Amino acid sequence: MKLASLNHGRDGQLILVSRDHQSAMFVHDIAPTLQFALDNWHLVEQELQHQYELLNAGKAEIAFKFNPLDCHSPLPRAFQWADGSAYVNHIELVRKARGAEMPPSFWVNPLVYQGMSDGFLPPHGDIEMRNPEWGWDFEAELAIITDDVPIAVTADDAAQHIKLVMLVNDISLRNLIPDELAKGFGFFQSKPTSSFSPIAVTPDELGEHWSEGKLHLEMQVTLNGEHFGHPNAGQDMTFSFPQLIAHIAKSRALGAGTIIGSGTISNRDSSVGSCCLAEKRMLEKITHGEITTPFLQPGDHLSITMTPPDGAPLFGEINQRVIACEPVSQTPPHQIKR
Amino acid sequence: MKLASLNHGRDGQLILVSRDHQSAMFVHDIAPTLQFALDNWHLVEQELQHQYELLNAGKAEIAFKFNPLDCHSPLPRAFQWADGSAYVNHIELVRKARGAEMPPSFWVNPLVYQGMSDGFLPPHGDIEMRNPEWGWDFEAELAIITDDVPIAVTADDAAQHIKLVMLVNDISLRNLIPDELAKGFGFFQSKPTSSFSPIAVTPDELGEHWSEGKLHLEMQVTLNGEHFGHPNAGQDMTFSFPQLIAHIAKSRALGAGTIIGSGTISNRDSSVGSCCLAEKRMLEKITHGEITTPFLQPGDHLSITMTPPDGAPLFGEINQRVIACEPVSQTPPHQIKR
Repeated sequence: MKLASLNHGRDGQLILVSRDHQSAMFVHDIAPTLQFALDNWHLVEQELQHQYELLNAGKAEIAFKFNPLDCHSPLPRAFQWADGSAYVNHIELVRKARGAEMPPSFWVNPLVYQGMSDGFLPPHGDIEMRNPEWGWDFEAELAIITDDVPIAVTADDAAQHIKLVMLVNDISLRNLIPDELAKGFGFFQSKPTSSFSPIAVTPDELGEHWSEGKLHLEMQVTLNGEHFGHPNAGQDMTFSFPQLIAHIAKSRALGAGTIIGSGTISNRDSSVGSCCLAEKRMLEKITHGEITTPFLQPGDHLSITMTPPDGAPLFGEINQRVIACEPVSQTPPHQIKR
Repeated sequence: MKLASLNHGRDGQLILVSRDHQSAMFVHDIAPTLQFALDNWHLVEQELQHQYELLNAGKAEIAFKFNPLDCHSPLPRAFQWADGSAYVNHIELVRKARGAEMPPSFWVNPLVYQGMSDGFLPPHGDIEMRNPEWGWDFEAELAIITDDVPIAVTADDAAQHIKLVMLVNDISLRNLIPDELAKGFGFFQSKPTSSFSPIAVTPDELGEHWSEGKLHLEMQVTLNGEHFGHPNAGQDMTFSFPQLIAHIAKSRALGAGTIIGSGTISNRDSSVGSCCLAEKRMLEKITHGEITTPFLQPGDHLSITMTPPDGAPLFGEINQRVIACEPVSQTPPHQIKR
């Protein structure tokens, strides 16, 4: 199944999207929002699947043309966004560049942080750059959404709780990170709003590309229309999604609608490029002793997709422009456009 | 106004509670859930206030006897739980005990972590102790709930976004914290589910006790029926709630329903006792060179309230037992009782 949320209200309006992304249909009789569907997955899955098959067969009662520009992120806001760092190669590289040793435990004990989830950007939402000197970076990642996960679930049992897969652009403010992490309480100011691909898909839709809790396809990133990176997400992923779930569920259950990110996708083979500016900059420093790539600038234009060989993009496209930010709004809070 | 959520569905059922906590009334015509009320505060506030006045005057159309045992936390799950550490005295004390210097910046730059918010415990929910060796501790704190807060709000402007005040018990697994914080990405496994007081109140309800974004009343904590601490929450609070809001909104807006915690309440005058076991243990170590108070044990019984002099508890009571945990459930996920 392919699901999306139209940009409507605070939680979007759930729609089914045809496999070829050409048509869509409302499903408010089954589930008005994606959060509702996840809260009641065992009750709604079968009927959604049935309607999805009708939609693909051109037999939906009322279908309309799918327009990704009408979409918000699949969950416009969520009760949990836990972002991992499963490509340990990426961490090692970033540390090496600043002369720091990575603790060997990072290869066996996943790094995950609790991210803000009270409001995401749409897949085509502008990145409003307030302070360019904060060092704005993108991070192209995979993410999954779970139903209810019991406390202390094993990695083996965790796989069945992965209900949807999507892409994410996790914005990071690189120049705010060192001071914030030095305080020991994790990210806060240095991680503003993320955006997700317009379409979230069930694992069965990914066929043979989805195996052992990893997605064995290339992430395609372009910056200002030029190739930036195409690492394979299934390669060099030290921790699979079920392993990340087991890690974060060690001392507590996870609520339906929990989003878990893979961290920046990164391959040991640096010829495939990168999925964030920090890594490219570090490779420049290691190779040439000098950083030549700047962080994001107003006017930049980013695209993140994932397309199987001889196929079409599976999740639609994250497509964002960076714009210089307007002065602080003093608009009454209920009129704020997030 | 005093608001509570009956334990019903995933988001509770909103009720108004009379000032004396004797009676309550449904308000589903105005707002079915507290999250809905916060999402639409400017639309529902006036009508809720009107009904609250009728309830207090004994003129509500249909009122029923209020029973705090029927309540969940005011927000049974939330889109954001940001827990500060505003009583810097507490941080300094804990660091001193382990021979570590606290960076002076902690006095001017607040510590806040992003906590899990995908499912809270009810105010009377059992603390299910899985592994006693994890070092289970409580933390008695104040918390506020905001409506929509614009990015880069100033502390002066932030005060108007505080819509509700409540109490929280933030459970911490002390023996998991050092390893987790050493990884630099903040808390995850070491912070399981928190619980909140049954009643959330609007700041106007707190009268003269609420001033400059602080609540100048004693927090009352008992453990196993014995006095544990009664520090004044308005004293030694280095950062007010509006200052905490301004800190976390520096690089992004906050969604309606954001919960912000004060951190463990702590006074310089240690004769008033403590609001967590860690602090009491550290004071024992500093004073006597030896820790005699254990962390929580199965059978322990905790009470957290806040009562003005010659008044009744303002927020009801957080009242939790610690119980030894059942073996891991393999129940299908949709049948899991959180």
